[in-house]
This record gives sequence, C-alpha cells and structure tokens, in this order.
Amino acid sequence: MTINQNFQQLKSSYLFANIGKKVREYQAAHPGADIIRLGIGDVTRPLPQASIEAMHSAVDDMSRAETFVGYPTDYGLHFLEDAIQADYALRGVKLDLDEIFLSDGAKSDTGNIGDILGTDNIVAVCDPVYPVYVDTNVMAGRKITLLPCNAESDFAPPLPTEHADIVYLCSPNNPTGTAMNATQLQAWVDWANAHGSLLLFDGAYEAFITEDLPRSIYEIPGARTCAIEFRSFSKTAGFTGVRCAYTVIPKELMVDGASVNALWGRRQATKFNGVSYITQRGAEATFTPDGRAQVQATIAYYLNNAKTIRNALADAGFQVWGGVNSPYIWFAAKQGMGSWELFDLLLNEAQVVGTPGSGFGPAGEGYFRLTGFGTAERTVEAVERIRGRLG
Amino acid sequence: MTINQNFQQLKSSYLFANIGKKVREYQAAHPGADIIRLGIGDVTRPLPQASIEAMHSAVDDMSRAETFVGYPTDYGLHFLEDAIQADYALRGVKLDLDEIFLSDGAKSDTGNIGDILGTDNIVAVCDPVYPVYVDTNVMAGRKITLLPCNAESDFAPPLPTEHADIVYLCSPNNPTGTAMNATQLQAWVDWANAHGSLLLFDGAYEAFITEDLPRSIYEIPGARTCAIEFRSFSKTAGFTGVRCAYTVIPKELMVDGASVNALWGRRQATKFNGVSYITQRGAEATFTPDGRAQVQATIAYYLNNAKTIRNALADAGFQVWGGVNSPYIWFAAKQGMGSWELFDLLLNEAQVVGTPGSGFGPAGEGYFRLTGFGTAERTVEAVERIRGRLG
Repeated sequence: MTINQNFQQLKSSYLFANIGKKVREYQAAHPGADIIRLGIGDVTRPLPQASIEAMHSAVDDMSRAETFVGYPTDYGLHFLEDAIQADYALRGVKLDLDEIFLSDGAKSDTGNIGDILGTDNIVAVCDPVYPVYVDTNVMAGRKITLLPCNAESDFAPPLPTEHADIVYLCSPNNPTGTAMNATQLQAWVDWANAHGSLLLFDGAYEAFITEDLPRSIYEIPGARTCAIEFRSFSKTAGFTGVRCAYTVIPKELMVDGASVNALWGRRQATKFNGVSYITQRGAEATFTPDGRAQVQATIAYYLNNAKTIRNALADAGFQVWGGVNSPYIWFAAKQGMGSWELFDLLLNEAQVVGTPGSGFGPAGEGYFRLTGFGTAERTVEAVERIRGRLG
Repeated sequence: MTINQNFQQLKSSYLFANIGKKVREYQAAHPGADIIRLGIGDVTRPLPQASIEAMHSAVDDMSRAETFVGYPTDYGLHFLEDAIQADYALRGVKLDLDEIFLSDGAKSDTGNIGDILGTDNIVAVCDPVYPVYVDTNVMAGRKITLLPCNAESDFAPPLPTEHADIVYLCSPNNPTGTAMNATQLQAWVDWANAHGSLLLFDGAYEAFITEDLPRSIYEIPGARTCAIEFRSFSKTAGFTGVRCAYTVIPKELMVDGASVNALWGRRQATKFNGVSYITQRGAEATFTPDGRAQVQATIAYYLNNAKTIRNALADAGFQVWGGVNSPYIWFAAKQGMGSWELFDLLLNEAQVVGTPGSGFGPAGEGYFRLTGFGTAERTVEAVERIRGRLG
C-alpha cells in the first residue's frame, strides 16, 4: 500500500491557509483590532434577485413528486446549457451543447482536467500564478515550467522559449489583474497550434472586462483546435457559496487521434454526478434580462471598489496594475520591500489583509494583491488607512 | 502533448448509457409503449419537508449581505459537520470534526480518493461491482483484481487470496442488495490491518438497513487504522439532484508515515471548493427530529416497493437477494438465460427496464437488478406485468 508520492513535492502549506493563520494570530493578540480583509478573492454582495427567485422556485420543485429532479445528468441540464450557448453566441462564438460541461467549480475543473492528460506532459504556468494550476500538476507528477511575467511588459505572459505541452492562461489575470488583448491571444493560439500544445484558458473573471477585449478564447481564430476554456458563476454572479462553473471543450480538439471532448465526457460521467438542480436554476436566471442587469450592478460595485483602491495606491506613489478589467489590484512594494514584509506591515499598521505576491510565484516577490470584493465602506476605510499610514 | 493512455483501457461505454440507448431505441420503435424504469438507482420521492424549509431559508440568507455566505470552506461548514458527528455518536462512533470531509457526491469521492494513492497499488473489487470503482482505477492505471461473489455465499465478498493493497467494499451492496454483518466486517478489518491494506467502505445505502447490522465500518474495532468510509445524502434523503456526501478519514490511518487524512485534506483544498451553502443547510435539516421522521417515511416507502418486487419474484419462482436492507433486488434469471437476454425480454414483454447483472462484472452474468426507487403504483404495475408475462 503506497500513497501518491508526488504529494511530498508540494510546498508544505497552501497560501491562503498561511494568511489565515497569520490573521488569526494577530486577532488573538489584538482582540479589539478591526481587521479589513481584502485578501482572498471571495465575494460579499448578495446573489442577484433573479437567482434568488429562481432558486426558491427550484426548491419548491423538489418538494413535489411531479416536479422533483433526481440526478441532474453528468454534464449539465439543457436549460442551463442552452442559456450558456446563447450567451456565447452574443459574442459571436458558436458552441454545440455537448461542448459545454457544467461543474461545481472552475477550481475543480482546472485541477481535474489533468485526469485526461498524460503525466509526461510539460506544463507551463505564468509566474506569478494562481497556485491551484501548479499544485494539481505537482500532485500528478508533471514537470512544470514557469513563464516569468514582469512589470516591463505589464505582466503579459511571454510565449515559451522551451518546449511546453500544456499552458495555463488566465485572463483577466489572477493575481495581476491584467487582461490580454486580441493580438496577444492570437499569438498564443498560433503558437499552440504550431506546436501541438494545449491552452487551458481560465476565463473566471471575464465578466469584469470593461474595455474592448475578447471575453472568450474562442473569439480568436484557431482556438477551437487548441484551447479548453474554463468559466465560473463564482465571480460573475456571486456564486462562490453556491458552486457552479462550466468547461468548454470544442470537438475539433484532438490529441493523438483522440477527442479531448469525449475523454472529458467519460471522466465526468465516471467521477462526477452533476450540479445541483437548484444551483443550475439559479445560474440560468443570471442570463435573463433582470438577472443580467443585477449581475452588472454587482460587478460595477466591485469595479468601483477596485478603482478606489487603484487610485489611492497610485496617489500614494505605488506602481499599480489591474482594477480596470478585473477585481484585482496588483501593486509593487516600495524601496525593495518583500511581499510578506508588506503583508505584515499592512496587517500591523493598517489592519488590512492582502495577499503577498510572492505567494503566487517567485516573480511575484515584491508585489502585493488587493481585491475589490469588499464593501464600498470598508474599502474606502482600508484605503484611508493605507494612505494615512503607508503613503 | 499526450492524453492519459489509460483511458484506452476503459470499456467502450458506460453501463447506464447502453441501457439508455436500448430504451430510447425501443421507445422510438414503439411510441405508445408505457415503459417502467426500475433500472438506474435514482430516487423519485420529494425531498424531506424539513430540507425544503431549510433551503428556502438558506436561499433567503443569500439574498442579504448580512447573511450572505461565500466560499463554504473546502471541507464543510461546521453546522453540518456537527450534525454528522452527532449522528455517528448515536451509533457509538466517535469522530473528530476534521475527520469529516463534505463533498458533492460519493461517486466523486470514491473516484477522486485515488488522487492521494499510489498508482502501483493493486485494487480489489467485488464481482459484481458498482462500475465506478473499476473505471476510476483503470483511468489511473492501477491493476485491478476481482473478488468473485456467488449465490452459494449470498454474494458476501470473499477475503482476497492474492495480494491486494486497496479493497472497495459496499454494504448494503450495490448491485446485490446484501449487507454484511459484524462478523463479516470484522474479518475484513482484521485482514486489512494484518496486511497493511486499505478498505474503501462505501456506505451510501446504510439508511436502508432494517436488521440489526452495523451501519458504519467504524462500529468494528480496528477500523480506524485501515478504513475510509463514504456516505451520501443521495439515497438517504433523496439528494441525488441536490448533491451532498461526505467522506470520513480517521487520523489514525497512516501509510508510509503519512497521514491519509492530511493528504485528502490537501487534495480537497486544492481541487475542490466546498459544497453549496444551500445544500448544506438542506442536509443539516435531515438530522432534525422532523427531518429524521420524513427521511424514515421515504425510506420505508422505497423498502415497501423493494418488498413488493422481492415477494413477487420469489412467488414467480426466481431466486432473490436484497430488498430487505437495501433498495436493490438482485435475482437469478431462469434456465441459464443471460443478463442482457433477460433485459431484452423484460423490455419487450413487460416494458420494464432493469439493469443486467453482467454490467456489474462477469460474476453478475445470469443475474439482474431491479430497484425500489419507483412509485408504489408503478412498482405494483411492473410486478404484475413481470408475473403475468414471465412468471
């Protein structure tokens, strides 16, 4: 009997667990401290009213035998797949229903997708990066290469200079808050098709795009033969506590003569049992006219927070990225200060919790992430504290 | 770029997909046929009213910023873990809260558990068996050995005669409907501890136990050092469409000096993002006095269906197992008829859909599974058709 030895290659603790520990210790030592959390990327606003109403109705459906819904099918119920398909069509992207796979979260999917891929593939990730891409591939025993991103290129990921079979891209990016334009995405698609590589495109934050930028990798010609796209209702519609996401795999995506769509279908049918019917009704409602308006209002609220943070940091002389097409604000510490040093300083001096950039990879050292997911009042308060004590 | 080549070792199609295809074809050829589905193990009764009320309340919580819940933590929210802990305590089983891991389904967990185990382990499964245990391990590249179960021993799984690192046990069993007693379970626990092997105990159907039998593997002395237990609200409380399950990993369970509990915790924190808050409130309500009474009423309803089927088949001269501590009825075809032959006969002559025993493994050939999950009226109708046309 053996365990998966790859787990021993994982770094000892997950970034957000470390942050939580530090915050708990600070709070224990300073019971009266009024800590403002702008660290982990969780949402705080209520669900769209359209989703609330749809979920009440769905709960009632489950109370009557005539309308009761059992296993929700492994891939998603048609009403929600139809709505997602129609939403893509608004951007000129044509998908078949069986190219859309519902799930309980993009975090699950970006990790589980590895089940259908060989462990001998070399995986390239941006540096800094969302840690899940790295840890899930370490668990599977894959070799990982870093694509260092830097301030000079506004943290746009550079094309690999060495061989890479699989590349995770996240745009708008977590943690840097920067979004790729059509030219940049086209370069990636062309590179992937030329090299027979696979792009794993995480679009969890697409709803925050305010500028004229692609929202889906499939807006880029050639993407259907090289890219899988992950999307989520978590940040779009505040579903972090409700759990709904989807993964798109075009049928043209073939590897070694095998359909990646069929492989994922088999994986999901075997190791997954569908998304809650109630959740799917709530997600469907975000695509109604009322739902869309409510979602937009919430996104605008978070983006206004992000703007508040971005402007205040810029005023205080920090170099800042993100916060325009993203809820994330990424900024450089001053005077060569390290990321965890700045974390401690913000916690001790301003009682504001953020996320150290170094937690996202070596190229994140010296940077820091804040998020627009707080309340407007607390965000203004946090910014005033930072300006007053660190400006 | 390579795919996971192990997928090519999978049998070409999933059992229930084959059945679905045959039924669709029959329905297309006989548009007026009134087909009764007693095949796939999905529930049909409404959710417990206590869960309905709790979920309405939880939906309302999500509509107000003050009560809104974001990420539900990776392992489960305390209120539900507390209720599960208390439920185990009623059976004399003492668990720490951090030994309980919530998830979206036991199907997910029984597959995903492989992520933390070495691919060099030899996996033993009963024959016949729930296909997910086999397919998920084929995907991971593990060697699988079968433990053939037979009518002579009432389908009790025999202890392995060859080396096995991991053994999946399911009691009450899917598909045979038989449940192991304390003596049988003790023999398995002793065997596992003596051989340093791991038992993966699937207790998804424990709520159907009516006789004086263990409901948890942890009622058996020694189980905490050798067994993981999977449980689900799907069949217990009709949650197939709501998605909630849990896995218990005792802290004493060590492999190569590594804590299996800690490994699974790391896996879940990295590749999972928790269960819907609304779902967890619904699950919690099944442990209230009202909830328990409502759950018991539904289980009694299904068990009465099972008894109806069991008695009718026995009256018609079939040899029958299950249906007492299980919603499943397992019976032997007559006169050397094959499982799929009986499937076609039942579909063509009685318009009743069941599950061919051979779909669960070679030792299931010549057997057939029916379930008590239909309505009482349709179950009686199905039984009358079978008796009239096949008796």
